[in-house]
Amino acid sequence: MSEKNPTACLLIIGNEVLSGRTQDANINHIAKRLGEIGMPLREVRVIPDVRQVIVDTVNEVRAKFDHVFTTGGIGPTHDDITSECIAEAFGVPWEPHPEAWAKMEASYKPGEFNPARQRMAKMPRGASLIENVISVAPGFTMGNVHVMAGVPRIMQAMMDTLVPTLQGGPPIVSRAVHVIGLPEGAIAEGLGKIQDRFTDVDIGSYPFYRAGGNGVAIVAKGNDPARAEAVTAEVTDLILSFGKNPIPGEPVM
Amino acid sequence: MSEKNPTACLLIIGNEVLSGRTQDANINHIAKRLGEIGMPLREVRVIPDVRQVIVDTVNEVRAKFDHVFTTGGIGPTHDDITSECIAEAFGVPWEPHPEAWAKMEASYKPGEFNPARQRMAKMPRGASLIENVISVAPGFTMGNVHVMAGVPRIMQAMMDTLVPTLQGGPPIVSRAVHVIGLPEGAIAEGLGKIQDRFTDVDIGSYPFYRAGGNGVAIVAKGNDPARAEAVTAEVTDLILSFGKNPIPGEPVM
Repeated sequence: MSEKNPTACLLIIGNEVLSGRTQDANINHIAKRLGEIGMPLREVRVIPDVRQVIVDTVNEVRAKFDHVFTTGGIGPTHDDITSECIAEAFGVPWEPHPEAWAKMEASYKPGEFNPARQRMAKMPRGASLIENVISVAPGFTMGNVHVMAGVPRIMQAMMDTLVPTLQGGPPIVSRAVHVIGLPEGAIAEGLGKIQDRFTDVDIGSYPFYRAGGNGVAIVAKGNDPARAEAVTAEVTDLILSFGKNPIPGEPVM
Repeated sequence: MSEKNPTACLLIIGNEVLSGRTQDANINHIAKRLGEIGMPLREVRVIPDVRQVIVDTVNEVRAKFDHVFTTGGIGPTHDDITSECIAEAFGVPWEPHPEAWAKMEASYKPGEFNPARQRMAKMPRGASLIENVISVAPGFTMGNVHVMAGVPRIMQAMMDTLVPTLQGGPPIVSRAVHVIGLPEGAIAEGLGKIQDRFTDVDIGSYPFYRAGGNGVAIVAKGNDPARAEAVTAEVTDLILSFGKNPIPGEPVM
């Protein structure tokens, strides 16, 4: 990845992933969406609904990465504390956001826009909204921190709104070749030599195990398609040198 | 969770989760296994195969949590650098582990225990092995850091070996009640009041969306089953006060 690629960090905020109650479905979606715009995800943290942990983590990672994305903790209940923690991290008041407030108030029947729901219309001062087509309650961007819902389909709708507004970097291209019946340990030395000569390409080696036969997928990633393809061409030759059949592309699952 | 519960942190090491190529399957398994022995997972980090990031992260989290579990990066290829990074983090040599070396050497045909495979038998000095029934190459424990494979079925086999050796804490019990057709925003205020009175129980509120009807699952977690059940009893009354039907247990997916 080039230095021209802005970096991203994802914070998954919520006890439910840490306790094993919920299988995370957000990392993969966000990783792919950001990869498409040349903004590689460089770190993910899953942290609990604990005020000081959220505040400290947000302040650490917003200084370290170009963009921070958060999911979770922006609903109406007592364990939804992400929004007020972001305000605390930035040292600004947490207050009704006029646009979010007006929109949410209008969407409820009289008397139903109660204090719990009003919390969802409160944001750090200076935040701009991330609207979505699924729910009325918006996410928001504060500085380089983008705060989204934890429910996957709402988060995805927020990403649909947010991603086109972000300035990415050169696209990261990926080329792959895989082989069945040749263990990683056999080709590791040859792969390492290829990696040594292609310092601008990240070569990953991923063993897989399945009914149709065990094998290895070798993935070359970088900004230059020609360089990634030069790597897969060399990997193809390496596989052939073992008398095995190189199969272009990712293995079909 | 009581202060008697030792804490755990999980490091998922590998570019493939960060790039979106691979859907993580390890967080959930490890979270559940550790919950069963009263060792709550307090943080997860997904980090890339970058030496300095691994070394710094390991040193940060091994000081901060009672136990650290890592997955990924202990295979034979150039991008498998976890083991040598753990040695660097602990400031000890990375060298052949006699027991692992002998076992691995014996498992290969003459000439096939090549330098790449020999890397899998090298460990930080002082490490103890984590055997597994799936693959010959072991993981290892170094201090409070438990280093495992990234391939889910191998990691799970290593957890089978490792978990019985760990000293956990009081079991964390979980009780749940759910309701369909009652939005989170309606019960949020009542839930918050219950949480205020039960400071030893973590009450989580998780909306769900599905064909059979949208609803909310309310989960009470703590060390004392009676206290968790007292919470779900109060939540049950809260749901009844809205004229809705409380359903004990997690929603059936």
